[in-house]
Amino acid sequence: MNSPSSASRRSEGIVRPTTVIESPRLSKRLGANVILASETFQLTGSFKFRAAYNVVTHISEPMVITASSGNFGQALAYACSLVHKTSIIVMPTTSAQVKVDAVREYGGQVEFVDVRVKSRAERVSELAKEHPEAYIASAYDDPLVIDGNSSLGSELISLGKSFDYVIAPIGGGGLSSGIIQGMYPAGKNIKVLGAEPLLGNDAARSLAANRIVRNETEPQTIADGARTVSLGEHNWAILRSGLERIVEVSEEKIVEGLRLLFELANLKAEPTGALSIGAVLTEPEIFQDRSVCCVISGGNVDPVVYARLLAH
Amino acid sequence: MNSPSSASRRSEGIVRPTTVIESPRLSKRLGANVILASETFQLTGSFKFRAAYNVVTHISEPMVITASSGNFGQALAYACSLVHKTSIIVMPTTSAQVKVDAVREYGGQVEFVDVRVKSRAERVSELAKEHPEAYIASAYDDPLVIDGNSSLGSELISLGKSFDYVIAPIGGGGLSSGIIQGMYPAGKNIKVLGAEPLLGNDAARSLAANRIVRNETEPQTIADGARTVSLGEHNWAILRSGLERIVEVSEEKIVEGLRLLFELANLKAEPTGALSIGAVLTEPEIFQDRSVCCVISGGNVDPVVYARLLAH
Repeated sequence: MNSPSSASRRSEGIVRPTTVIESPRLSKRLGANVILASETFQLTGSFKFRAAYNVVTHISEPMVITASSGNFGQALAYACSLVHKTSIIVMPTTSAQVKVDAVREYGGQVEFVDVRVKSRAERVSELAKEHPEAYIASAYDDPLVIDGNSSLGSELISLGKSFDYVIAPIGGGGLSSGIIQGMYPAGKNIKVLGAEPLLGNDAARSLAANRIVRNETEPQTIADGARTVSLGEHNWAILRSGLERIVEVSEEKIVEGLRLLFELANLKAEPTGALSIGAVLTEPEIFQDRSVCCVISGGNVDPVVYARLLAH
Repeated sequence: MNSPSSASRRSEGIVRPTTVIESPRLSKRLGANVILASETFQLTGSFKFRAAYNVVTHISEPMVITASSGNFGQALAYACSLVHKTSIIVMPTTSAQVKVDAVREYGGQVEFVDVRVKSRAERVSELAKEHPEAYIASAYDDPLVIDGNSSLGSELISLGKSFDYVIAPIGGGGLSSGIIQGMYPAGKNIKVLGAEPLLGNDAARSLAANRIVRNETEPQTIADGARTVSLGEHNWAILRSGLERIVEVSEEKIVEGLRLLFELANLKAEPTGALSIGAVLTEPEIFQDRSVCCVISGGNVDPVVYARLLAH
C-alpha cells in the first residue's frame, strides 16, 4: 500500500494546491464561518486529477482503461498524457459532445458504448481482453485513488485553520475517504461530513445500516458526479468509522448552493461541487457560528445547463 | 507621496494575493502560454479593494465619499468598515438592486442621485459641503489608488515567471498605471498592454495623440467597469510612457473571452474582466507562442446578464 506521503511526493509540483476562498458575504448569508476549498481550478477542473495522477505514477502498465463520462475520464486522459501512457475512456454514445471533446483534447482515446445494448462494464471487460497490457482504473474504489485524493486532506491540515467541520460531496466515496485518510495523521478533531444528493442517498442508508446499501439504479440527480450506485469497498472501509455523518441534500438546495457560490463568492461550481454548500443550507443549525470548510469538488458544467440554473 | 512598499506593508494580511490560474486548454485555444491573474476572489470581488484599502489606511478623515455604481463603491464601503470609517456611496437611482444591496451589506451608506436632474459629480459636491470632514475619493485618478493597485504589479513580479506581456483592462487607467508602477522597481522587460473596449477607445486615441482625449459621453460597452469618459491625469502621467500599447476589443470579443474563461478555465469573470482575453483574441499574432499574463480584474456580474451571455 502506498502511503499518503508517497502521493504527496510524487504529485508535488504537478497537482495544483487547492484554492482557498473566503467570502464574508457568503459566511454572513450561511450564518457560519465558511472557507471554500475549491478544486475547480485543479488540472482538468476537478479533484479527480489528484487520484488519476497518483494512479498513473504508481503503475507499471503502459495503458489505462476506465469507464467515465465525466471528470475522472478527463483527469485520467490528461494524467496519462503527462507520463506518456495511453488511455482509453469508455463513454456512452449519448455523452455530451463537450465532454467527448474534452477527453480528446486531454489526449484520451474515446471508445463509445451503446448502453442500450451492453453495459459500460461489459465494454471495459472486452477492451481489457483486447489490451492485456492495460490497467483497469476505478474512479473511486482503488487504494491508489484514495491515496491520491488524500493529498487534499493533508493540504487542509497544513492550512493551519481550526475547522470544526469539513464537508465534501459524496458519491462513490473516493473524495471523502481520501480526505479522512489525509487528515488522519494530524490527529486533529475535525469532523468530516459527506454531502449526498437526497435522490441517491445510498451512502446515508449505508451508514445507518452499517453495511453498503445500493441504489437500484443510477440516481438521476443534477449532481452528475454523484450518480453512483453505491460506495466502493475500499472507500467504505474508511468511511464506516471515519465519516461523522451524511447530510442529504435536495436538488433545490444543490441549485441554491450553486447560485450562492456564483453570487457571493464569484465561484463557478458544477452542481456536484455545490453539494457542500447545499448541506449547510439543509441543516443550518449544525453549522451555526462554526468554522466550516466546504470542499467544492469541481467546476465542469455545460454552459447551457449552468445558464439555466442561474436563471432558475 | 506614498511609495509602493508602504502600500504593500499596510495591505499585508488584508489584501488577498491574486489567484494564479493556468489552463492548458485555454492556452492551446489561444495559441499562447496564458497565465491568468484573477482578482475575482479579491475581497469584494475585484482589484478595486487594493486601491480602496490603501486610500482608507492613508487618510486621516473619518469619512469617505465617492460616486460609484460598481466595484469601487463596494470596495470602498468594505475597506471603510474594516478600519471603522464611514462611507457614502453616490449611486444613480437606476442602479441594479443587487449592486445597492452589495454596497449596503459591506457597510456603505447609499445616496441616490437622479442623473436626469443632476450629475453624480454635483451630488458628490453637495455631500462634500455637508460633510467637510470627508475625503472625496476617485476610483482611479488618485496617487493613493495607483499606489494601492501597484501591489498587484509587485505580486506579478514576485511570481518569478518570465512574462513577455501583461495585459490589463483599461478604463480610467487606475489598474494599468498601478501595475506599471508596481513592476517598475524590478527593472524587468515585461511589456504592459491595455485592453480597452473599442466602443470607448479614448485611451487608444490618447496614446496616439500623446494627450488625454475624451469620449463625448460615457461609452455604452458591456464592460461596465470601463465606462469612463477619459483617463485620469495621474494615470496618464504613468501610462504615456509606461504603457506599451492598447488593444481595442469589440463587444463580441469581450463576450467570447468571458465564455472561454467559463468553458476552459472554470472562471467566472465580469465582462470588464474578460477584456484581456478579448485582447488576445483580437490580435492573436502579437501573442503567438508568447508568455502572456492576463489580468482578470473582477468577477461581479449579475446572474441574469451572465446567463444571457453564456447562452449567447
